[in-house]
Amino acid sequence: MSSAVEKQDISQETGGQDSRSRRSGGREARRAMRAAPLADDVRPIRPGLEGGRYKPLGQNDLERIHEAVLTLLETVGFANAIPSCIEACTRVGVVLGEDGRLRFPRELVMSTIRNAARNFTLCGQDPKHDMVIQGKRVHYGTAGAAVHLVDVEKREYRESLLQDIYDAARIVDGLDNIHFFQRPMVPRDVPDPLDMDFNTLYACVMGTSKHVGTSFTVRENVAPALEMLYTIAGGEENFRARPFVSNSNCFVVPPMKFAEDACGVLEACVEGGIPILLLSAGQAGATAPAAIAGVVVQAVAEVLAGLVYVNALKPGHPAIFGTWPFVSDLRTGAMSGGSAEQALLTAACAQMAQFYDLPGGSAAGMSDSKMPDIQSGYEKGITNVMAGLSGVNLVYESAGMHASLLGFCLESLIIDNDMLGHCQRCVRGIEVTDTALSIDTIAEVCLNGPGHYLGNEQTLRLMQTEYFYPAIGDRLSPKEWNERGKPDILGRAIAEKKRILAERFPRHVPKATDDRLRAKFGELIKLPRSGMGC
Amino acid sequence: MSSAVEKQDISQETGGQDSRSRRSGGREARRAMRAAPLADDVRPIRPGLEGGRYKPLGQNDLERIHEAVLTLLETVGFANAIPSCIEACTRVGVVLGEDGRLRFPRELVMSTIRNAARNFTLCGQDPKHDMVIQGKRVHYGTAGAAVHLVDVEKREYRESLLQDIYDAARIVDGLDNIHFFQRPMVPRDVPDPLDMDFNTLYACVMGTSKHVGTSFTVRENVAPALEMLYTIAGGEENFRARPFVSNSNCFVVPPMKFAEDACGVLEACVEGGIPILLLSAGQAGATAPAAIAGVVVQAVAEVLAGLVYVNALKPGHPAIFGTWPFVSDLRTGAMSGGSAEQALLTAACAQMAQFYDLPGGSAAGMSDSKMPDIQSGYEKGITNVMAGLSGVNLVYESAGMHASLLGFCLESLIIDNDMLGHCQRCVRGIEVTDTALSIDTIAEVCLNGPGHYLGNEQTLRLMQTEYFYPAIGDRLSPKEWNERGKPDILGRAIAEKKRILAERFPRHVPKATDDRLRAKFGELIKLPRSGMGC
Repeated sequence: MSSAVEKQDISQETGGQDSRSRRSGGREARRAMRAAPLADDVRPIRPGLEGGRYKPLGQNDLERIHEAVLTLLETVGFANAIPSCIEACTRVGVVLGEDGRLRFPRELVMSTIRNAARNFTLCGQDPKHDMVIQGKRVHYGTAGAAVHLVDVEKREYRESLLQDIYDAARIVDGLDNIHFFQRPMVPRDVPDPLDMDFNTLYACVMGTSKHVGTSFTVRENVAPALEMLYTIAGGEENFRARPFVSNSNCFVVPPMKFAEDACGVLEACVEGGIPILLLSAGQAGATAPAAIAGVVVQAVAEVLAGLVYVNALKPGHPAIFGTWPFVSDLRTGAMSGGSAEQALLTAACAQMAQFYDLPGGSAAGMSDSKMPDIQSGYEKGITNVMAGLSGVNLVYESAGMHASLLGFCLESLIIDNDMLGHCQRCVRGIEVTDTALSIDTIAEVCLNGPGHYLGNEQTLRLMQTEYFYPAIGDRLSPKEWNERGKPDILGRAIAEKKRILAERFPRHVPKATDDRLRAKFGELIKLPRSGMGC
Repeated sequence: MSSAVEKQDISQETGGQDSRSRRSGGREARRAMRAAPLADDVRPIRPGLEGGRYKPLGQNDLERIHEAVLTLLETVGFANAIPSCIEACTRVGVVLGEDGRLRFPRELVMSTIRNAARNFTLCGQDPKHDMVIQGKRVHYGTAGAAVHLVDVEKREYRESLLQDIYDAARIVDGLDNIHFFQRPMVPRDVPDPLDMDFNTLYACVMGTSKHVGTSFTVRENVAPALEMLYTIAGGEENFRARPFVSNSNCFVVPPMKFAEDACGVLEACVEGGIPILLLSAGQAGATAPAAIAGVVVQAVAEVLAGLVYVNALKPGHPAIFGTWPFVSDLRTGAMSGGSAEQALLTAACAQMAQFYDLPGGSAAGMSDSKMPDIQSGYEKGITNVMAGLSGVNLVYESAGMHASLLGFCLESLIIDNDMLGHCQRCVRGIEVTDTALSIDTIAEVCLNGPGHYLGNEQTLRLMQTEYFYPAIGDRLSPKEWNERGKPDILGRAIAEKKRILAERFPRHVPKATDDRLRAKFGELIKLPRSGMGC
């Protein structure tokens, strides 16, 4: 192979010349080399790559934000706590004021941070999808509660359905660069809250063996869900040992008020062994300050209050530091998930989680654009790469999302899988070793060699392990592109979606288990077996 | 205004709810507030924002790369130097080997770095466009030598023409977030090299009063260009005092060989008072090593050799550290400008320029996609924001470019202006001051206030100065988008391009000066006055 490559002519591709190389001899050989799947440890990208090389905040900034947070928690505190929350929190030292607000002494906040769960694993049903949440390890996944599915072919928004959730789950199940599946849409065809919560979770866990995140409307809806999960796990202990579902919990109505129903859900999930994503979703200029630093302060204060609450209920219960502040377009008040300010907020929150050495989750990839177009591309690319480089452990909303969380798109999942691959390659960064510095290689090529690196041993060795190749991204020359009929990335994504939906019906939950679930829950299960390829 | 805003209902926009706010009372007032143009010093973004919060390389990595560079320069050196280069370089201590290679002693390299020009200004014809190149100040601009213009309406690539260069220049002239204009295309309708060089420059400097970059094919083509520039400047001294054109100079054919014609051009430009962009454009795995660190080593070595050369010709002549390594898709050998590896290379090169405190320029924004689609969006967004965050002084190729430098698109310029605005807002980062931390604001809103920040004094104060608003980016809700006929960003960009091309004919070069040029150069000038709105 090396000689075939060496024989090719070298034409230099610079900014100054139209000299796209026209090599062919080595191409097929190199393509064949690429066709063999790589072992996980030599893949150019993988879940849990270490981020953190981008730091929007300096050390002094972090300390000032932390001090402001402690001040807010002990002087402003939280309104609207439910009785069980008051009971649990005051037991550990939270102070109930005459104005009804719970205030958090700084010593309690600090000891909670010290003793909180960290370095835990968010499990998949399949252990190969386990995510070790620690340090600055980065994972990307979905999330959201879109009410629309984006129909790319018809160029329209329609209501999202239960089947769409299952379809999104099974698409994500096969996309390497999307590491977890939090429910991204609400099923508008299942309006009853219990039906909705139960079936959303059912569609998710049947659709993918990756870690799943979901929400519950009220406390009472947790019990049947737990029964389903314990059944799938083969018993309560099995689920508690490897919880493959976490609860995305909006326990706070910013600014600084508890959400009563969500708190009930939180308590039931802690009791049932479900990890909690403590999600504070203030919106800058509306439910959070307009100053970026102030948004971070409020979000961190809110999530730390939630952390005290969870640890008051059950010390060491796994909880994710879910600072998810959003941005408003202050001209209209509408949310702007694709904005630069959003990218900064998310990255700053990552640093605060790292400041506390807590497992951090935040949101990126929320395009304002309605369709998978160039705007959605740059908004997703900018926000997701900054999230990854900052070292957020869990990047939620990173794939498929449009219209600032109102529309979810299956084709975008497939395109975004490539985009997230690029982000992960950027997170992985640059290896600087004696070999990588390449002094000997450069000297050999210049002084004794062919004057180029095409057939070099180093090139052949690194092409698979150091370079990320997109699955449907287009790298054709204009000439090739024209000859192939000017292919369009949306067309490729539509075709790939149809292929996946026709072929991929995950069977990680055995039929016998699903039989038991259907026997146990009867008509509560709304997703027909026909929609599951049975 | 504040009370009107306060009266609006607050609906919380979270990941869990379909509750896009429907406020109207304050919108118009806030829109009116936004309509007044802002003074430059309070704009949310501006040229020269300070980057550097993203550091792909650690201090030890930088030092190891530097050491490898010095080793290469003194042991491998450069082939193919022209006699005048050998003469100038050996005079300052470069060693000509028996193998014909010039080798650079490390003391000479270090003293060159110490004494080289830094902290200089790249001037515009209009001083308001001057760029102060120092530290980690970031500027974005165009560049390239595309041979095609991307026709978005016909969805096709056609040959690029002289008029296209002028049109691109005048579009860039009015786009705030593109700070300089290096010629992005070659005029395929002007094949003679002298005609091409002269007219390319003429189209650029007539089309925009921003700083211009251009190339010359051979040394002899520099003289008439200088005559044109001196005429426009109102005399040679005026031009030398405020050179508003720099020479993009590919003086090296990687790996480690001088490009003979470009070196002749370089010498003529140094003599004529034109700043030099010392451009090394190796391609990883083809004309540079496949290891990312090795690519950086080679690029830095090559540019430092050029810096020695320039300073041997004229100590302190302004030169830009133009490490522009490119990436190959190693499966095919084709360039991949939109890749993650490209983003890493560009950011690493920025750090090396900072390591030497030299004015650094590198390339980002080079999409592999043929059209302004979602792929081009994420490729441009990822690479450009990482370039900015790393603090590259001059980001070349950042707008308009497609097909890995083979196609340039006028509509993309307009879209990319928004994208670069987002990038610049990210570069600007987060202000952490007592006021921005917002403790008092949060306490007031929670304890005594309305429970939201919509009408807050801080919100109204910051909405103009802290938030970047895209010009054609879409932030409509799905409902509004539907009601407005599902507008498409490409449609808006096409319309805006047509409006600009019909209306904007820059007149910073007075008609009398152009008359003199046309009298002096006669038929050498190929751009008809009719194409210039006369």
